[in-house]
Amino acid sequence: MTGDCIFCKIIRGEIPSVKIYEDENVVAFLDIYPINPGHTLVVPKRHVEYLHELKDDEAAALINAVKKLAPRIVEAMGADGYNVVTNNGRAAGQVIFHVHFHIVPRFEDDKCRFDCERSKPSMEELEKVGEQIRRAIG
Amino acid sequence: MTGDCIFCKIIRGEIPSVKIYEDENVVAFLDIYPINPGHTLVVPKRHVEYLHELKDDEAAALINAVKKLAPRIVEAMGADGYNVVTNNGRAAGQVIFHVHFHIVPRFEDDKCRFDCERSKPSMEELEKVGEQIRRAIG
Repeated sequence: MTGDCIFCKIIRGEIPSVKIYEDENVVAFLDIYPINPGHTLVVPKRHVEYLHELKDDEAAALINAVKKLAPRIVEAMGADGYNVVTNNGRAAGQVIFHVHFHIVPRFEDDKCRFDCERSKPSMEELEKVGEQIRRAIG
Repeated sequence: MTGDCIFCKIIRGEIPSVKIYEDENVVAFLDIYPINPGHTLVVPKRHVEYLHELKDDEAAALINAVKKLAPRIVEAMGADGYNVVTNNGRAAGQVIFHVHFHIVPRFEDDKCRFDCERSKPSMEELEKVGEQIRRAIG
């Protein structure tokens, strides 16, 4: 459904955006609702909903654009660090179903907290979960 | 300082962990303070502090392991989606200075909120930020 996809429209230049980078595979533009100034979205040109649906070379192009851009964004914003986040599925907070990496510049004194409550399972409990996952990996 | 790095010790098997995957370049093991069951860390075997310090092929190996593992973890946990997060720099919440991707399985009804307060700058303000970043990219 690339016709209705807002990121596909941005890629095609059909709706306005502030693009900061473009290459053969990838486009990067500013999030219009930034967590911090310089908050950037990096997307593959091909319409793919989820990270795990990308081909290996597409995922490689995407992460290599992210790692090239992130320190430049930090530099330009005078930031102190950055988060890279991709949300897959509505339960994970995905809103636009065209895979995208957020690059969020971070400042020592900003109010953003990405972390959530954590638990402390026993090694036995962890090992049980590990075994479930290993079985699914096959 | 790979001698003191807790992830290097895990990679070398010097301290216990629940490994779920290993290949030539990458190791994946369960976070001992999981946000949700199945919360996994994916790390390069080479000690590198930050994402942007990885070579292109190392970053590619890392993201391709992440995209291979994430849907298997979701399946094993009966989850509804997943976040992939990497924190770079203390200001971004990085605690262990060996680059790592979190894969966090997410459930429709979980209490985790990764998002932070957002602003709504004008297109003119955004364009100014875009120009700063483009200059830093060069």
